[in-house]
Amino acid sequence: MISRSDCEAMDASDKLAPLRSEFSLNPGEIYLDGNSLGPVSKNVGVRVNEVINDQWAKGLVRSWSAAGWMAAPLTIGAKLAPLIGAKANEVLVADTLTFAIAKLVGGALRLRPDRNIVLTDVANFHSDIYIINEVAKWAGRPIEVRTINRNNLAQELNENVALVEFTQVDYRMGEMLDMKSITKMVHDAGALMMWDFAHSTGAVPLDVEGCDVDFAAGCGYKYLNGGPGAPAFMYIREKWQNVIENPIPGWLGHARPFDFELGYEAALGMQAFVTSSPSILALAALDGALDIWSKTTIAEVRTKSLALTDLFIALVEERLPGVFEVVTPREHKKRGSQVALRHVESYAIVQALIERGVICDFRDPDICRLGFTPLYLGFVDVYDAVERLVDVMNSKVYDDPRFKVRNSIT
Amino acid sequence: MISRSDCEAMDASDKLAPLRSEFSLNPGEIYLDGNSLGPVSKNVGVRVNEVINDQWAKGLVRSWSAAGWMAAPLTIGAKLAPLIGAKANEVLVADTLTFAIAKLVGGALRLRPDRNIVLTDVANFHSDIYIINEVAKWAGRPIEVRTINRNNLAQELNENVALVEFTQVDYRMGEMLDMKSITKMVHDAGALMMWDFAHSTGAVPLDVEGCDVDFAAGCGYKYLNGGPGAPAFMYIREKWQNVIENPIPGWLGHARPFDFELGYEAALGMQAFVTSSPSILALAALDGALDIWSKTTIAEVRTKSLALTDLFIALVEERLPGVFEVVTPREHKKRGSQVALRHVESYAIVQALIERGVICDFRDPDICRLGFTPLYLGFVDVYDAVERLVDVMNSKVYDDPRFKVRNSIT
Repeated sequence: MISRSDCEAMDASDKLAPLRSEFSLNPGEIYLDGNSLGPVSKNVGVRVNEVINDQWAKGLVRSWSAAGWMAAPLTIGAKLAPLIGAKANEVLVADTLTFAIAKLVGGALRLRPDRNIVLTDVANFHSDIYIINEVAKWAGRPIEVRTINRNNLAQELNENVALVEFTQVDYRMGEMLDMKSITKMVHDAGALMMWDFAHSTGAVPLDVEGCDVDFAAGCGYKYLNGGPGAPAFMYIREKWQNVIENPIPGWLGHARPFDFELGYEAALGMQAFVTSSPSILALAALDGALDIWSKTTIAEVRTKSLALTDLFIALVEERLPGVFEVVTPREHKKRGSQVALRHVESYAIVQALIERGVICDFRDPDICRLGFTPLYLGFVDVYDAVERLVDVMNSKVYDDPRFKVRNSIT
Repeated sequence: MISRSDCEAMDASDKLAPLRSEFSLNPGEIYLDGNSLGPVSKNVGVRVNEVINDQWAKGLVRSWSAAGWMAAPLTIGAKLAPLIGAKANEVLVADTLTFAIAKLVGGALRLRPDRNIVLTDVANFHSDIYIINEVAKWAGRPIEVRTINRNNLAQELNENVALVEFTQVDYRMGEMLDMKSITKMVHDAGALMMWDFAHSTGAVPLDVEGCDVDFAAGCGYKYLNGGPGAPAFMYIREKWQNVIENPIPGWLGHARPFDFELGYEAALGMQAFVTSSPSILALAALDGALDIWSKTTIAEVRTKSLALTDLFIALVEERLPGVFEVVTPREHKKRGSQVALRHVESYAIVQALIERGVICDFRDPDICRLGFTPLYLGFVDVYDAVERLVDVMNSKVYDDPRFKVRNSIT
């Protein structure tokens, strides 16, 4: 039996424990929804208010150059790059994830003009599937989008596949895919590979360089804690820069934006994929949130993440044997930084947990999804969360009809 | 001769003068660049910090519903709607202006499948032209984009024109187009009309309802003072809602975003054009900036704007006769809220003015552009700006080589 004092001991020897004080968390609440929206950290408010009260209020329009606003999509991209194993000049921060996917998929389809199939995962986040289907119409030739079972990739690949787009950590189940072997399989078939890192960045180590990834994109508001609707990022491997075209171009991606030329000529490098200026306030918030990575590494975070999810799974199985199906893989190399529990009453269970201060979320049709962020969660948090889950299950409070009314937003 | 005390008298009787105290402006500086980036007003910081310290820090993921984040693109759109003469349900705020144009042009081309020409203005802001040319490729049929002289619109319209996209106030010259007669001319030819309001919203009265405008978009960071890279807005006339399709769809535009359906079904109304969540910090800043409109009306602002630009033109002609060509129209109904002066040394003149605390900008090839925002500028500001311009011109300080070095950002 794992005791609370065992968990206290683990917290006591946890090198990352001091980072918790960087974040604003509600007393008594256990926040297991950082995979939906990360909490606010100290430097966020500092940086945003610096923009408002100093750069904007005093510098005004001059701050586009003097305060580095114009360069911010690339400078913050460079700061984020190590988290995915990219070079500093391979990442930009702007827009939202759906727009980033639109740009990269649209651009990639022009790089394989003789191939007319895009493969994506039927279990992918639905917004990926919607935008890929739509961008396929932009190609100027008939493109077929196939939503496949990702486990059948080998059979689905053929000489007509232009691009494969997968999400690296499944948003619902928490399964992490093997980026290296899948990317290689796709390349061996002559196709391009794009990864969605929404549930990967800041949660698991990524090595786009070593895995020879062509394109990737991810969001800033989950494990990067950049705030609600934070800018997304995109990665374009250096060899594709100045080759891939931005299908949603704007003046800031022009080689000479202030020459006001009628004809579009793309800027060099990642700048070509900046369309127009993202919110500088939003960029400043993400920039502040990224500061935490100067105090730790993704390797340290990963070690603790696995310890936390191991502990959670062990406690659930010990305390509630047979009650839930743990659908997130046990195997470390297949696990992201969340645990998904299957139960027919998951919707009501999640509502009851939230009422008891364990913030997590429900994913259709029967998944209770719990995210574990080592930057601000400890082992006692995991223990206490399971305590409250045990209470919910043993009391059957989830049968209360008020927990079963579904809101549109969960 | 107009004297400084004449201007002081005008300020003394100016009903809008008290609004200046809502804004943060540098002492001694005259800010004539609000048509590039508006200054910060009091409620911006209040609102943004409320999001950071309360809604985000304490409400966390729950704030998507509890704090109205999910609804923000439409609720802030409704707040902005009166400024363009739209109904509350016809405007949304999100993304950037270039994305808004992409969505509306892409959608409009599907509404006229038997027509294959888009007309836009050769003097349009270049980003409009870049994105229209690119979106034309998305249509699935050959589309010709013609960049015309806007004065030749009547001759260019024919039964093959699907859409006309014009900017209502010319960003360089400050000429305001007659929205009603142009929209009618376009409709009489069976085409659709889209207006770019980048230099119109908050600067001049707009009546999309009375002018029967189909689509419009504008930006939040100029005369709306929403901050650097503030979200853009888009307008879709009610009759086109649920008819026009969003060519860059995302999960938040789905009828049931949390049902995670594989197939895309558009939400009703403007929600269908929300792709994914814009930054809530950026939306909060714009929301705070829009509060000023509860204290005045666009009609009052327009009256003062014309008085300010009239005064500026009169002073320039009186004090510097024959030195500049005033390229902005004298006729009120053709003038936006800026004055453009032509001079072969405009680049250096602008740099010298900035050094003397008159913030304005240069537009290629020879335009000195000065924006007049009645919310925070008075008549003495105009007088003093001209004094400094007179000094620059009479001293010929603009001949100093250091003013002639062109930066990439001006």
